[in-house]
Amino acid sequence: MEKRTELYRGKAKTVYTTDDPERLILHFRNDTSAFDGEKVEQLDRKGMINNKFNNFIMDKLEAAGVATQIDKVLSDTETLVKRLDMIPVECVVRNYAAGSLVRRLGVEEGQELSPATFELFLKNDALHDPMINETHAVAFGWATAEQLAQMKSLTFKVNDVLKQLFDDAGMLLVDFKLEFGVAADGSIVLGDEFSPDGCRLWDKETRKKLDKDRFRQGLGGVVEAYEEVANRLGVAL
Amino acid sequence: MEKRTELYRGKAKTVYTTDDPERLILHFRNDTSAFDGEKVEQLDRKGMINNKFNNFIMDKLEAAGVATQIDKVLSDTETLVKRLDMIPVECVVRNYAAGSLVRRLGVEEGQELSPATFELFLKNDALHDPMINETHAVAFGWATAEQLAQMKSLTFKVNDVLKQLFDDAGMLLVDFKLEFGVAADGSIVLGDEFSPDGCRLWDKETRKKLDKDRFRQGLGGVVEAYEEVANRLGVAL
Ligand SMILES: Nc1ncnc2c1ncn2[C@@H]1O[C@H](COP(=O)(O)OP(=O)(O)O)[C@@H](O)[C@H]1O
Ligand SMILES: Nc1ncnc2c1ncn2[C@@H]1O[C@H](COP(=O)(O)OP(=O)(O)O)[C@@H](O)[C@H]1O
Ligand SMILES: [Mg+2]
Ligand SMILES: [Mg+2]
Repeated sequence: MEKRTELYRGKAKTVYTTDDPERLILHFRNDTSAFDGEKVEQLDRKGMINNKFNNFIMDKLEAAGVATQIDKVLSDTETLVKRLDMIPVECVVRNYAAGSLVRRLGVEEGQELSPATFELFLKNDALHDPMINETHAVAFGWATAEQLAQMKSLTFKVNDVLKQLFDDAGMLLVDFKLEFGVAADGSIVLGDEFSPDGCRLWDKETRKKLDKDRFRQGLGGVVEAYEEVANRLGVAL
Repeated sequence: MEKRTELYRGKAKTVYTTDDPERLILHFRNDTSAFDGEKVEQLDRKGMINNKFNNFIMDKLEAAGVATQIDKVLSDTETLVKRLDMIPVECVVRNYAAGSLVRRLGVEEGQELSPATFELFLKNDALHDPMINETHAVAFGWATAEQLAQMKSLTFKVNDVLKQLFDDAGMLLVDFKLEFGVAADGSIVLGDEFSPDGCRLWDKETRKKLDKDRFRQGLGGVVEAYEEVANRLGVAL
């Protein structure tokens, strides 16, 4: 598989075309950003950890019947993936209240949400990823009603699988964000990444934060927390 | 029907108990507010117009099969209504993009939305009525999934009826907000008011604003516009 041109340089990953028009390379960089790209730092080893973490998680999801982009790991920081036509709508499930939900709705941080909530956000840094709903996505052509229904049901399936996985490793899966895309055959496939950059994980006993909130809130020990999560799950780093 | 104590003084109406525990009096005041109560003015005749306008509209909706709170008009500014246990979630349908939608999603004002969008907002001035979705309402106990499904379908039914009504009178129903409550028998009933305070109406040809945006944007001629809308519909003032 030959790497060709840089297709897109995002906040945390760079995407390259390959000699196969249906495959891309995701390169996980050490860049860590928050507040829609306003705060950015390089965190040593983060690209490697997230690449390996993402592959570990997507393997588990694929085994549970969720179609993912993964083709194969190419190096410590690079993975070959299916080229998807990304849907610009992020899917979020929350099992506990945290982050923007707490600020926007004035609810208590850490409160268990039962049933878990599901949110859609328009992927648009300039607009600060505004919350939307299915009717906006359909009216503005960001996704069809059928695609949205599938994305919702897949996101809840991912929650079922991962809540248990993290629980078994002594962690609470507080919330997470997924991005889906449309494959060449029109099916909905899980793209992008699942890593501590895009979810919240708390230690079950102490509720210590083990995710990107350590970076957002300047708590320090960011990469150490990511490594701890990987170690607890048995991800080989 | 005897007026008893003041139950609640809102931004535009005062609610009184009566000697019938299942009936309340809504008193439409001249107070006009915007930006969650930050801008407030008295506009002469507005209470009377909105009371009569609301009764006219709710009659049409009742005739179309939407259960409403209306019992009977008591005076120019007062109406006897069913006492409802109000659901703190506002329902909004938009046929054209305007207001907060334009600001939040960066879309063009006046763009037709097809299909019409549907939004839920938490009724909470301190939090600036944040947008929510069904899963938030259920998780935080603001409404049940069944109630929300009914509210959504009733709001679209109201849109069907009123879009046509305003179109016949040379106006575009751009968007509107409804509030529902639970009646003594557990059914979902349309409460609060439908008036130019809580919807957007544009002249079909000139797109002249005939609603509370005239007040929000300091365009003047607010009550004159409300009266014009009432006259075009044939509301007896
Ligand atoms: N399988 C895929 N096919 C095509 N694009 C993808 C795939 N997976 C992720 N992407 C896109 O590549 C970019 C990944 O880089 P990232 O640094 O996360 O960017 P961003 O700053 O846009 O979030 C994102 O825009 C994401 O939507
Ligand atoms: N039929 C009803 N039964 C009980 N409460 C109602 C009914 N209709 C409206 N209300 C409530 O009465 C208040 C009306 O006054 P308003 O000035 O609109 O208040 P607000 O500033 O809260 O919007 C609102 O809080 C509304 O929810
Ligand atoms: Mg990203
Ligand atoms: Mg009100």
